[in-house]
Amino acid sequence: MKKIAVILSGCGNRDGSEIQETMSVLLAINRMGMQYVCFAPEMNFEAVDYLSGLKTKEERNVLTESARMVRGQVKALNLYKVEDFDALVFPGGMGAALNLSDFGTKGEDMEVNVEIRKAIERTYELHKPIAAICIAPVILAKVLGKNGICLTFGKECEASKVAEKLGARHIKSGATEVVVDRKHKILTTPAYMVAENISQIFEGGNNIIKELKTFLD
Amino acid sequence: MKKIAVILSGCGNRDGSEIQETMSVLLAINRMGMQYVCFAPEMNFEAVDYLSGLKTKEERNVLTESARMVRGQVKALNLYKVEDFDALVFPGGMGAALNLSDFGTKGEDMEVNVEIRKAIERTYELHKPIAAICIAPVILAKVLGKNGICLTFGKECEASKVAEKLGARHIKSGATEVVVDRKHKILTTPAYMVAENISQIFEGGNNIIKELKTFLD
Repeated sequence: MKKIAVILSGCGNRDGSEIQETMSVLLAINRMGMQYVCFAPEMNFEAVDYLSGLKTKEERNVLTESARMVRGQVKALNLYKVEDFDALVFPGGMGAALNLSDFGTKGEDMEVNVEIRKAIERTYELHKPIAAICIAPVILAKVLGKNGICLTFGKECEASKVAEKLGARHIKSGATEVVVDRKHKILTTPAYMVAENISQIFEGGNNIIKELKTFLD
Repeated sequence: MKKIAVILSGCGNRDGSEIQETMSVLLAINRMGMQYVCFAPEMNFEAVDYLSGLKTKEERNVLTESARMVRGQVKALNLYKVEDFDALVFPGGMGAALNLSDFGTKGEDMEVNVEIRKAIERTYELHKPIAAICIAPVILAKVLGKNGICLTFGKECEASKVAEKLGARHIKSGATEVVVDRKHKILTTPAYMVAENISQIFEGGNNIIKELKTFLD
């Protein structure tokens, strides 16, 4: 059975992984007869109050809150072994831009969490596919942009401009479309960068996993 | 457009609404061309650490954490007006047994949060359908069991025994099946009371909303 590693960044679109995007890929992986294993980095972050939209000064832990997302079934990212998996998937959500990287506060001066960077580099070196959703492709741009990867954020935006400065090529796409870079085995779909409802998110999530599976058959 | 009120109890299966069950009904409602509005009670609860499974003594708020589940789009339950909606839906998760009621700690001596009880009573009085998933039917048993409603938890369990003591009739069912009480307009499906994977949850969530819609056409 094909095994897919899914990297989480917390629980919720404003300070963690976007919940619909995450569920859409877990559902698609399970429906297509593959297995998912979720990972998240062990680190603290400042929680957002989702009623006010403001930061709270309340520290929570990315690994613990990611566990909340997936019924406790998550592993610390330092246990990820690229040899044990067939592909790597990054759902979106601001956690990708605040916890897995600091794109959300630093823009083009962003850095990527060292464990995340190593996971991406190891997976890429072994020619295994990597999928990223919504804002998460900006992380791939930072780590792999120098190789000229193609990716999408749907439409032109701050993230697409930074990605292009980092060497990536941005391709426009609709909410449920997948941009597939066959040479580098990079798959991206814009989801809530442009989507307007939950049905589009689950359609896009299904589409990206379907395309990912073509690299594994 | 038909409007469905969805009652949340936090974010996560161990101290709030089960995430997959919640997403499955939101997705089904949207796909079937209906509108959902989420509500949650304004009250504190003790958060669980999802890595250890233990309570943390850390207080969080049901309304705020429910907002986390649905991208901030949730209203306080005291704003629920039964006249404005066509149906009421309760996803499962231990929040239904710890926050919306105290079944999780009191068993058959349980009480239901007063706002939740009133919402159910008002909806039932106006002959509008009510759907409940996983452990949430135990709340309906407490409020409406005296009317002899039929419901399911999948297989016989502590909750089914309590529900029968409260006057409800328990009907066994498979993970994705829906028990429809046409007389009382009560719909239930067991989800993670018996389900084993995310695909079953989304199938069951789609099934219960499809059955719910037959009362609205």
